[in-house]
Amino acid sequence: MTAPFPRHAVIREVGLRDGLQSIRTTLPTASKQAWIRGAHAAGLRELEVGSFVPARLLPQLADTAELVAFARTLPGLFVSVLVPNLRGAQDALASGADLMIVPLSASHAHSLANLRKTPDEVVAEVARIRAARDASGAKTLIEGGVGTAFGCTLQGHVDPDEVLRLMQALLDAGADRVSLADTVGYADPGMVRELFTRAVDIAGERFWCGHFHDTRGLGLANVYAALEAGVTRFDACLAGIGGCPHAPGASGNVATEDLAYMLGSMGIDTGVDIERLLALREDVAAWLRDETLHGTLWRAGLPKTFPAQHAGAAA
Amino acid sequence: MTAPFPRHAVIREVGLRDGLQSIRTTLPTASKQAWIRGAHAAGLRELEVGSFVPARLLPQLADTAELVAFARTLPGLFVSVLVPNLRGAQDALASGADLMIVPLSASHAHSLANLRKTPDEVVAEVARIRAARDASGAKTLIEGGVGTAFGCTLQGHVDPDEVLRLMQALLDAGADRVSLADTVGYADPGMVRELFTRAVDIAGERFWCGHFHDTRGLGLANVYAALEAGVTRFDACLAGIGGCPHAPGASGNVATEDLAYMLGSMGIDTGVDIERLLALREDVAAWLRDETLHGTLWRAGLPKTFPAQHAGAAA
Repeated sequence: MTAPFPRHAVIREVGLRDGLQSIRTTLPTASKQAWIRGAHAAGLRELEVGSFVPARLLPQLADTAELVAFARTLPGLFVSVLVPNLRGAQDALASGADLMIVPLSASHAHSLANLRKTPDEVVAEVARIRAARDASGAKTLIEGGVGTAFGCTLQGHVDPDEVLRLMQALLDAGADRVSLADTVGYADPGMVRELFTRAVDIAGERFWCGHFHDTRGLGLANVYAALEAGVTRFDACLAGIGGCPHAPGASGNVATEDLAYMLGSMGIDTGVDIERLLALREDVAAWLRDETLHGTLWRAGLPKTFPAQHAGAAA
Repeated sequence: MTAPFPRHAVIREVGLRDGLQSIRTTLPTASKQAWIRGAHAAGLRELEVGSFVPARLLPQLADTAELVAFARTLPGLFVSVLVPNLRGAQDALASGADLMIVPLSASHAHSLANLRKTPDEVVAEVARIRAARDASGAKTLIEGGVGTAFGCTLQGHVDPDEVLRLMQALLDAGADRVSLADTVGYADPGMVRELFTRAVDIAGERFWCGHFHDTRGLGLANVYAALEAGVTRFDACLAGIGGCPHAPGASGNVATEDLAYMLGSMGIDTGVDIERLLALREDVAAWLRDETLHGTLWRAGLPKTFPAQHAGAAA
């Protein structure tokens, strides 16, 4: 009747980018490196470490090249960065990142406000990025990330057909991977089930990642619905940092530790050692003592029944 | 491929019982009546208003009979109470409650510790309660609620086959309705999908309610999985009060307002006016100013895209 769950799934920790860009605290590079080292030690194998944007726009992320270089020294770590345009992509190619995410906003209003481009102008930029990547000989993968896929705080409704049209356009323009993001926390699991099922049908193996914000408490329910639709990679932020500029105090991305718990409890292997992850969360909480943190597992701890191989007690 | 969602679902507000019994504050009867009135005004039509247990054990709930009498004056309100045994059931029958929930713990260790009876002794008590109900001529329904259905903080693993055996035994003993509860927040949506599918297959229309705690952040994901399994009635507490004595600061039941938001967003009618519910949450927060509250929607507010007929803006 219902599909079996996948045996493996990947959590991509995006706290160093999506989390840190949305809060006031600027974390020193040494702390970020400790975060990367701790995440790797806890078994995470994909990290988004920063964004190649002008430092005057996001001074919190000005050390991205240095972080990519550091992350690449850790064995088996797949290093992602965000790039808003060709200029950033050239930095990403030079840095040696394994993957660069190009954000596209399916909401025209949001796209113009945030990127000063229409969605189709972003698609054209991805074609230029693809040409630059191929010319450079670099192996850096290109991920086209379609944001505001479930609605937008500026324009409200975003048409699912338009979201899928833009996703297809990104694939046609040369994106190696595509993803969908609920940038503002408007999705519910019913919407996710429907849109992600269609997206996976279209993109197949090139569908890469689900990105959910927990702004209204539905983050993990949305992950579950995407999992049922066949998605096996999810973005998350340790301690659920990030928030939403339109909702003071609201949580950001789904919390990495809660997501790792849900998947581990379901018997889905993520390679994550949850006890080590919770220890890293304590470090992050100390570094970000002036910020509102989120997540739930850290208070209650793992259930007695939690499978030992995912808890990390034996590690 | 996947089943359609139901058109209607029922939220049963249990904050006045499961919530208030687990916190320190004793709410005055007048505040509880204001809560009941506010919940009714916000469109909730099922409330669990208290528990018929000796006042020396739970002084917070000593006014249950008075609250049942008050709640029965509100049109269309279906009034539930908890009863631990025949003695409490006699009080419930005398009070005129519409339904009495008899809790059974599938964990033998938890059952002995909390109820001083084995699960099968509770089944036998339900048979006596059924006989008393039938002899009294009262219309009060009997719900057998199987708790610790996904594990227990004392004994750890609870066998799903044992959970379903006890649920069947409750039906055979004369329970009109049966429910499953994740009393300690151990469930994940994979477990819920499997167990609730089997439970609904067994009990059919007599399967009544899913009761989830959000102790580890999976409450709404678990509701979603139960919804996919065909369950259409869920317990919830306004502001997620209740907590867990084993996990200080951890949240209690799923928050009524977040659940109403999720269902409304999915186009599932609950009759709830979310704006009024959020206003009632503010009252509850004032009454319980020394308690840790939970829930997420209240910070961010409803999305721009939320269907107006569920928001209550037009009401």
